[in-house]
Formats: sequence, C-alpha cells, structure tokens
Amino acid sequence: MKHRYAGRTALTLSLTLSALALGLSPALAQQADTPPAPSEIVAAAPVADWVAIDPSDILVMTLTPDATGHARRIIIQLMPAPFASAWTQNVRALARAAWWDELAIVRSQDNYVAQWGDPDGEDAATARALPAGLHPTVEADYVTPAANLAFTPAPVRDAYAERVGYVGGFPVAGDATSLWGIHCYGSVGVGRGMSPDAGTGAELYAVNGHGPRHLDRNIAVIGRVVEGMEHLSTLPRGTGPLGFYENPAERTVITSIRLASSLPAAEQPRFQYLATSSASFARYMDARMNRRDPFFIRPANGADICNIAVPVRRVVMQQP
Amino acid sequence: MKHRYAGRTALTLSLTLSALALGLSPALAQQADTPPAPSEIVAAAPVADWVAIDPSDILVMTLTPDATGHARRIIIQLMPAPFASAWTQNVRALARAAWWDELAIVRSQDNYVAQWGDPDGEDAATARALPAGLHPTVEADYVTPAANLAFTPAPVRDAYAERVGYVGGFPVAGDATSLWGIHCYGSVGVGRGMSPDAGTGAELYAVNGHGPRHLDRNIAVIGRVVEGMEHLSTLPRGTGPLGFYENPAERTVITSIRLASSLPAAEQPRFQYLATSSASFARYMDARMNRRDPFFIRPANGADICNIAVPVRRVVMQQP
Repeated sequence: MKHRYAGRTALTLSLTLSALALGLSPALAQQADTPPAPSEIVAAAPVADWVAIDPSDILVMTLTPDATGHARRIIIQLMPAPFASAWTQNVRALARAAWWDELAIVRSQDNYVAQWGDPDGEDAATARALPAGLHPTVEADYVTPAANLAFTPAPVRDAYAERVGYVGGFPVAGDATSLWGIHCYGSVGVGRGMSPDAGTGAELYAVNGHGPRHLDRNIAVIGRVVEGMEHLSTLPRGTGPLGFYENPAERTVITSIRLASSLPAAEQPRFQYLATSSASFARYMDARMNRRDPFFIRPANGADICNIAVPVRRVVMQQP
Repeated sequence: MKHRYAGRTALTLSLTLSALALGLSPALAQQADTPPAPSEIVAAAPVADWVAIDPSDILVMTLTPDATGHARRIIIQLMPAPFASAWTQNVRALARAAWWDELAIVRSQDNYVAQWGDPDGEDAATARALPAGLHPTVEADYVTPAANLAFTPAPVRDAYAERVGYVGGFPVAGDATSLWGIHCYGSVGVGRGMSPDAGTGAELYAVNGHGPRHLDRNIAVIGRVVEGMEHLSTLPRGTGPLGFYENPAERTVITSIRLASSLPAAEQPRFQYLATSSASFARYMDARMNRRDPFFIRPANGADICNIAVPVRRVVMQQP
C-alpha cells in the first residue's frame, strides 16, 4: 500500500496539474463532466479569437548551441505601439543592423533577470558602435496615455497599481489616465543608467523569477518571451555581483537577433495570441482566478495579473 | 559618445540594482545622503534583530555534482509548527531514514516547479517503501487557526487573500480566523493525488517561477529554499508533459537529504532570519514597497508579498 500511495501521488499530480500546460491534446481537453482547466478553454477557443502577431513584432534570438549541441532559439513578442515605442523602434533598428550578433548574455541573476548586450560596453576603445539614428528615450515614455487604447480590464486586486488588464495582448497596469507595461516572468526590459538616461534598447534583460513589479515605470518594458524562455532561465547563474559573469568564458554568445519579418518567408515563425476581448479569454481569465478543475479544492476568487498570461500559440504552416 | 553611452548603461545598472542583492559589503551600504536600499537596511540590522533557525528546521539537500564537478547543495528552511506540521514531521522522518538518497529530481517545468521523489513510485514492484510511522495528512491542515500566532501584517494589497504577512519568518496569507503558507519563488510544497489524499511529504517540489499562488490551500507548503536555489532553477527543463524528464538519464540524482541537526556539529550549517517583528524588518518592508534608492524614479507604494522575502543569512562560525 505504501508503494502504491507514493506512486499515485506522483501520477495524479502529473495528470491533474496538466491544466497549467497550454496546448494539450484535444483528448485531454475532453474529460467529461468536469469544469474545464484554463488550458482546455484555450484549446477550445475558436479560430476567430486568435490574433496573428505581426512578424515585425517578433524578435528571433538565437544563442550558440548548448553543451549537447542543441539549438537555442528564443522568441520575443514586442510591445505594441504606443507603449515604449522609442525603444521598440530602436530594438528593430538594432536587429536590422545585426548589432547583437556575437555579443553575449552577460548576466544571470537568480529570481531576477538574464541580461544581454555588449560585454565590452564599459570600454570606449572596444565597445561596439551603435547604429546611427536611434531615437532618444526619456523616462516620461515609461507611461502611456490611456485614452484611445483598447483596454481589457482584469477584475483582480493588484499590489502595485490601481488597475491592471491587457492591451494588444500584453499585461499592463495603470491609473485613471495612464497605462504601462509590467514586469512578469519572461518580460523583456531595457537596461539603463541613472536618470534622465533611459537606455537605448541595446542592453536588454528577461525576467527569470517572480515578477519584479517595483521596476514598473522605472524601466521600459519592451516585450515578452513567448517561446524558448527555458534557454534563458536555465543559464548558469553568474557568480559576480548581481549575477554578472566573472569569467568571459562563462558568457553565452548570441548568434543573432533578427526580426521575424527580416527572415526569408519560409523561415518566419508565425504566432498568434488569444484576443483579450474574446469570450474565450474571459472564460480563461475566470478559470485562472477560480480553479475548478478536479485537482483543486479551494478556488482563490482572484489572481495575480502575472499568473494570467495571455496565451500564445505557434502556427505551423502547412507544407504543400 | 555612443560607446560611452552603452557602457554607462551597463555599468550603472549593475551598481544601482545592487540594492536587490542581499549581503553586500558595508562599504556599499554607506553611500552618503541617499535613502537606503532594502539590502542596506538588512546589512545594518543589529544582531538582536536576527533569529537563529533551529538545525532541526533545516534540510540539507545534496545533488550529485554538476557537469563541471561542482558540488550542489540546497538549504531548505521548514515551516514552523503548527503550519503543515504533519508533513514537516514526515519530512524529518524521511530525512532521518535517508529515504531520498539516490532518488532523483524527476521534473523541471519552466515557470512552475522542480519536483523530486521516487522515479519508480508508479511501480509497486520497484517503488521504495516509505518508513513506518508517517503521519496521515488531510486537506484540513492546509489552513491553520490564526489564534495565538505571532502574525506580522504586511500592509499590502494581495490578489489572493484578505490579508498577508509573516509568522515565524515565513510569508503567510489568511482570512479573519486562519492563516496558511503561500507559494512564492523558492517555496517548497508537497506533491499529492486527488482529495482526500494530501500527500505524505515524500514527493516535494520547489517553485522556480512566478509564485503560483492558486496552489495556496490546495497543496501543503512545508518550507522554502534559503540557499542554493540556483541548483534547482537552472536544471534543464524536462521535455515530457508538465516538464517530467522523458529519459531517466536526464534526471538529477539526489545524493542525500538530511536534517542539519543530524549532521556532525562541525558540519551543521547555521542560518538566521530577520525577525519580522523588528524595526529593521519594518524599514526593510517599507523600502521594498517604496524604492527610494537612487536608481528608482517612482516608488510603487505597495509590493507583492512574494517580493518582500524574509532576509536570511548564513552564520559562519569562527574557527579556533
């Protein structure tokens, strides 16, 4: 009996927590007579509820292969204008200039961020020149006027802001008149110096732990990782202050960062996000706030906005 | 100029975000005329504000060395009674029985959990027998009566509960009459099957992403990782459903899990946590809610309870 008890524990956990893994097979989504898990609601969403992500809003980041020779590719969705648009324009320009190629991930701090850019940036003699024409950036652009934005409110309490919700497939927070991008797991932001220097976009980081929301409105959020986050989250932590790598050999070299729209059409990855204005998303949000699928005993009647991520799926094009 | 701009960005970020790394040198903590960072408040806390963690409340988890031969040791602080005490007693019994030795980490799911236990638990013929005398566990024990507990409230909004704060060095949430352990980054919980099976404590997991607070009161939280979390968070993600490893060779073998109190005195690691009833903690909590150190532009006037972790420090014993 003891044997079977231990076994049942592991097995049932694996099945019942499946609700948290998006993109399960339809078979799993069809357990009769049980309230649907969030993933099952997403799997059942009609085609009309999905929005294509423009290839010019997608960064394809390729790292050198890992120790076992496996490719490492990370897909980043850029924040839609008008959010952080000076930075996202700069990021597109840097990608078009192949600026990050052969630069590196310079920092990996546990429960905080992985950060990449020019390891020689400190040294004017060796730092890589930025492309011409980058936009100046200012702190004022950390917040965006809310008027005229299609905002989907999330009916949840938030520890950091008066209101939270979604615009253009991204989680945002705000007050009566403004909205801003927020720091969740996988969010991508712009390293910067002291004010009024607000960063160019050449130095980026991705959040690898609990959302450091105190950075909201203090650093520009320019996107989020929608695929391949594990290639950043599993990087060895740097042993220097703040997780910077002490030995250059510890850094992971970036093979390239490109806009999907710059790739040959056949190589462009295609993604869609679930429209936050859709009925499917409303059901998904409610299910994230009140887990009623069989594993759960006590629905929370609430959720952290960072625990209600906008579902994203990869679209596999049919081969002729 | 462009060179120096990029350089300054990286340098200043590294210095100013240092506020988030606890245990900095006193020199860094003494920047004149600037509001202290949370880490600086912690570094300045008097000895009297620190509480020793009982060695019988500390698990020492040793994994096989990593690919480069480096030791991997993880320190877990157990929840104080009466929280989850049936499970924490079981966990102590399992550690005393050396039950986990040569078992493995069986699952690593990105932005969710790393989980360990008996890989053969599914198979009654090969599963490892549990030690005799484990306590039965029931869901009712996921919540604890609040009466007579020394609760330090955190003055923050919470998306999941009426109130949040601290007991015995741990973050907890609650309602008018009860309190319960919560799922933050590094929290350790008990895998279980369907109700009323509430898990023995033999199957454990640690949170490696944004706190999955919807698991609160649905699974027992029995502790938190206070050192060495990077050895769990950087594990390769499993490629099976829910991050289970598909190939047994991908699992990381556990060398041992022991109570610190079971180790020879000279080998017992010593830790302290900052008393949440102390003035130092009140200042630290306020600084986490309102970052006023120089890097920050806009204090949030709030924080997620998971972003106000109770500081823990290792005590290095003087050698004679």
